[in-house]
Amino acid sequence: MKITFLGTGSACPTHSRNVSSLALQLPEMATMWLFDCGEGTQHQILRSPLRLSQLDCIFFSHLHGDHLFGLPGLLASRSLQNAGHTPVTLFGPPGLEDFVRVALGVSHTHPGYPIKFQVLEPGVIYENARFQVVCAPMHHRVESFGFAVLEKPLPGAFNIELAHSLNIPEGPLYGRLKAGETVTLSDGRVIDGKRLVGKDRPGRRFAYTGDTIYSNSAVALGLDADVLVHEATYLQADEMQARRGFHSTAQGAARTALEAGAHSLYLTHFSARYETGPQLSALLQEAQAIFPQTALAYDFLSVEIPRRDHNDKCLHDEDMAPAGA
Amino acid sequence: MKITFLGTGSACPTHSRNVSSLALQLPEMATMWLFDCGEGTQHQILRSPLRLSQLDCIFFSHLHGDHLFGLPGLLASRSLQNAGHTPVTLFGPPGLEDFVRVALGVSHTHPGYPIKFQVLEPGVIYENARFQVVCAPMHHRVESFGFAVLEKPLPGAFNIELAHSLNIPEGPLYGRLKAGETVTLSDGRVIDGKRLVGKDRPGRRFAYTGDTIYSNSAVALGLDADVLVHEATYLQADEMQARRGFHSTAQGAARTALEAGAHSLYLTHFSARYETGPQLSALLQEAQAIFPQTALAYDFLSVEIPRRDHNDKCLHDEDMAPAGA
Repeated sequence: MKITFLGTGSACPTHSRNVSSLALQLPEMATMWLFDCGEGTQHQILRSPLRLSQLDCIFFSHLHGDHLFGLPGLLASRSLQNAGHTPVTLFGPPGLEDFVRVALGVSHTHPGYPIKFQVLEPGVIYENARFQVVCAPMHHRVESFGFAVLEKPLPGAFNIELAHSLNIPEGPLYGRLKAGETVTLSDGRVIDGKRLVGKDRPGRRFAYTGDTIYSNSAVALGLDADVLVHEATYLQADEMQARRGFHSTAQGAARTALEAGAHSLYLTHFSARYETGPQLSALLQEAQAIFPQTALAYDFLSVEIPRRDHNDKCLHDEDMAPAGA
Repeated sequence: MKITFLGTGSACPTHSRNVSSLALQLPEMATMWLFDCGEGTQHQILRSPLRLSQLDCIFFSHLHGDHLFGLPGLLASRSLQNAGHTPVTLFGPPGLEDFVRVALGVSHTHPGYPIKFQVLEPGVIYENARFQVVCAPMHHRVESFGFAVLEKPLPGAFNIELAHSLNIPEGPLYGRLKAGETVTLSDGRVIDGKRLVGKDRPGRRFAYTGDTIYSNSAVALGLDADVLVHEATYLQADEMQARRGFHSTAQGAARTALEAGAHSLYLTHFSARYETGPQLSALLQEAQAIFPQTALAYDFLSVEIPRRDHNDKCLHDEDMAPAGA
């Protein structure tokens, strides 16, 4: 579970930052998802190790051009490069389908794979055996949403040393015990696999706000997130500008991370006025004063979302009982 | 009158070439025009000395995505960067206005300048005191047009040495003579200004084909062009592919330039399969064997369209006559 920032500026591209897009790689599913798709996203992917063939879903936080206008070209190139025949599902506010149909229509683009549309509504919008995507309304000038990708809990580690010390013979039995089954050994002992396996490990949590001013909804979205990506368009000195545009200051983003109990915060979507270093350093300092685990995103920054340390307790000898005990 | 190639690849961006766009600067009008506007054109402009504030017209050869999808972002950025309040006129096939209206509508983009639309038809589509733009249908998979920008003839040079030798007093009289007026000197001589001014100098001619297979119409468009920009998507070895896509080979483009009596030919819109140098060298050789004044375009190549050498003959002493002679 790894994110790559493909665009970290707001409104217009600059010399150092493209407009918004973020890739999430899910190696467990050999899949890539995108969050927003500003103009030039396909160019950024071309310059990265990411592959359009793995694209599966794009989640649009809102339909402002700097989050949207890269979509037709990316969809066309995925087809022209013969980079995948699997469907791509586009999650977005109403209007997204109109835009795509007109863009592909007037340009005579006929992608060689199905494109599906799903209009966003608050709640669970995607679920499979491994992941859930939750959508929540944000607070911006236009209808906007944030997304949390929640990995489901993973089975705990199998305590192989304990299995050896109990003289459980290696082989197919191990697989059944790992899966939590109860098995009867040839010597009559009954072993509950669940007791050889540690507690479920918590799944990872990634949250992406899109564009929003500080809101309770963003706090709820970022709850306990391992990585929270929050927009921070402005310095505190430009707070009035932020309010007018329903954007966040660095302080607002940091307050959200703090209140959400997030484990790390990546700021993005910086105003082009801060193109130069000193002002962005100030922006970072404003956030870190509230939430120290803050970093500034930059184009092509990749972050592996870590599993948390956890106490992987397994059963002990005294927990074991012979069959019928 | 200077062109700058902003994208010289076909279909999809590559590591070295963006998709189609070409800028024409007309310093006489402090104006920039674009021909086609593939995704990332605004990014290319950002990396060039060109300025969106000078943008006045965009001419679309056709609506394939690699010539079109950079338009909404470019229009939005021109407004967001406060880079001009003057109108922008979009010339294109039917469908262009639908695309722009839907793209700007769903994205809540409200440009701070007027956008005008003009549906292309063969013939003169633009004219002012200095330039004429002629549009002609090309031969591609979808409705496509090429454009010729024709500078009107310029007045010949004023022969100042001759004026001196005729003892015409310097001052306001010179301005009137330069403008071709007939003036009466204080000594009674009548001087016809036209005879102190050389012949009209021919205007420069620039032609751009957009996407097309070899066609008589492209030959007519490029007639006597100082610079002909012609697509050359394929090598001769890939001619079948060219025919299928109604694209040109380098030989087809060169033949067009030769038959048109063009003065120079710039090839563009290369297939991504020729990303590496050797194949593009071969492509150039195939064209030069037919039309030696051929060059390969590359992104950010700028070409000043030269005025032609011409015989700027002026009248001689014996042409002068005293008033009443």
